[in-house]
Amino acid sequence: MGKIAVILSGCGVFDGSEIHEAVLTLLALDQRNQEVHILAPNIDQHHVINHQNGEEMNEKRNVLIESARIARGAVTSLSESDPSQFDAIILPGGFGAAKNLSNFAFIGSKALVLEELSNFLLEFKKYNRPIGAICISPVLLALLNKELGNNSKLSLTIGNDEDTSEALKILGCNHESKSVHEICVDTTHKIVTTPAYMVGQNISDVHKGIDALVEKVISMI
Amino acid sequence: MGKIAVILSGCGVFDGSEIHEAVLTLLALDQRNQEVHILAPNIDQHHVINHQNGEEMNEKRNVLIESARIARGAVTSLSESDPSQFDAIILPGGFGAAKNLSNFAFIGSKALVLEELSNFLLEFKKYNRPIGAICISPVLLALLNKELGNNSKLSLTIGNDEDTSEALKILGCNHESKSVHEICVDTTHKIVTTPAYMVGQNISDVHKGIDALVEKVISMI
Repeated sequence: MGKIAVILSGCGVFDGSEIHEAVLTLLALDQRNQEVHILAPNIDQHHVINHQNGEEMNEKRNVLIESARIARGAVTSLSESDPSQFDAIILPGGFGAAKNLSNFAFIGSKALVLEELSNFLLEFKKYNRPIGAICISPVLLALLNKELGNNSKLSLTIGNDEDTSEALKILGCNHESKSVHEICVDTTHKIVTTPAYMVGQNISDVHKGIDALVEKVISMI
Repeated sequence: MGKIAVILSGCGVFDGSEIHEAVLTLLALDQRNQEVHILAPNIDQHHVINHQNGEEMNEKRNVLIESARIARGAVTSLSESDPSQFDAIILPGGFGAAKNLSNFAFIGSKALVLEELSNFLLEFKKYNRPIGAICISPVLLALLNKELGNNSKLSLTIGNDEDTSEALKILGCNHESKSVHEICVDTTHKIVTTPAYMVGQNISDVHKGIDALVEKVISMI
């Protein structure tokens, strides 16, 4: 049984973690008897979006506290977590990855990854263990291409979105176009990615891609 | 292809819809090619709970707007929805069913169902179409036992919780003890229930019960 860190960025596709992707990740891990630990940074969300009309709300919410909704309570602050304790990391998608875990949504390839997340990922990679990234989350790895890649390019997919795949190339990565059912496997760097709702139109298609990603990540432990 | 109403009560197990149960319901319906419509009442939540520490927060949130997080946007106000348009209704669980859709969490068997929901359910039952209720949501049907049952007892499960099953009996229902993998089928009233996280310890077990419930509900259309 592997010990898997699932890193969330809030609770809701437009300002946090994409809920379906997060839940389907938990499902696929539990179906394979993995021990799951849900982590999130203890920071304010970039903003709060009314998910019904898309407008910004005059509210503040905390990423760790909102992530606890998906976790049904048990969530640990990223900065208090020890990367060496985990056999794999999975990053579900949602705008939270590009608004809370980085500022990619606002400045694209010039963005920075949240320091406590980049510290966590870079420390983790010393142990040569696998990372799975879903939907828009592969940009977090792309922003750390140089450090994670050790001077060789990461291969990632974010589906087929032109602007985002161009940003990945600017950051020095290979981009592979993939459908919602497919995964991109970078065996050199032990990184698995799948586009999920970057391409997917419905939850059962997204489920297939995430299930394949989880299967592959576990096989690389 | 059936047209299915999934009625939510917010976004988070302690003050709204149980997120895993809601998402697994959407997955099971989509895997069976059903047309899903997510409905919720346009009302304030009873309260907002910090899901990390269980404490009440000094905030207000709206059930419809928070439900849109699970829906990825597309959610319709219950009071603006026409029950005759749907082939089946499914009610996922979470404390929202007992705090927002009724006041069962506070006064048990003396509780009332939110008027717009009871109107919706009672109008819907005129068409003799199936209802599925998950986790704590069967109490909503129990509170309408007389009207939904037409003078014969509804048969429901909420798992094996003593206090809640006792409340169901006080309300005039038959209670059947069930495990997380099982469903309770009331063929007379076309009602299917499953305990999910009332009993379940992990998401893959909850998935099995909800998948069985969805399968059965669809077969009754």
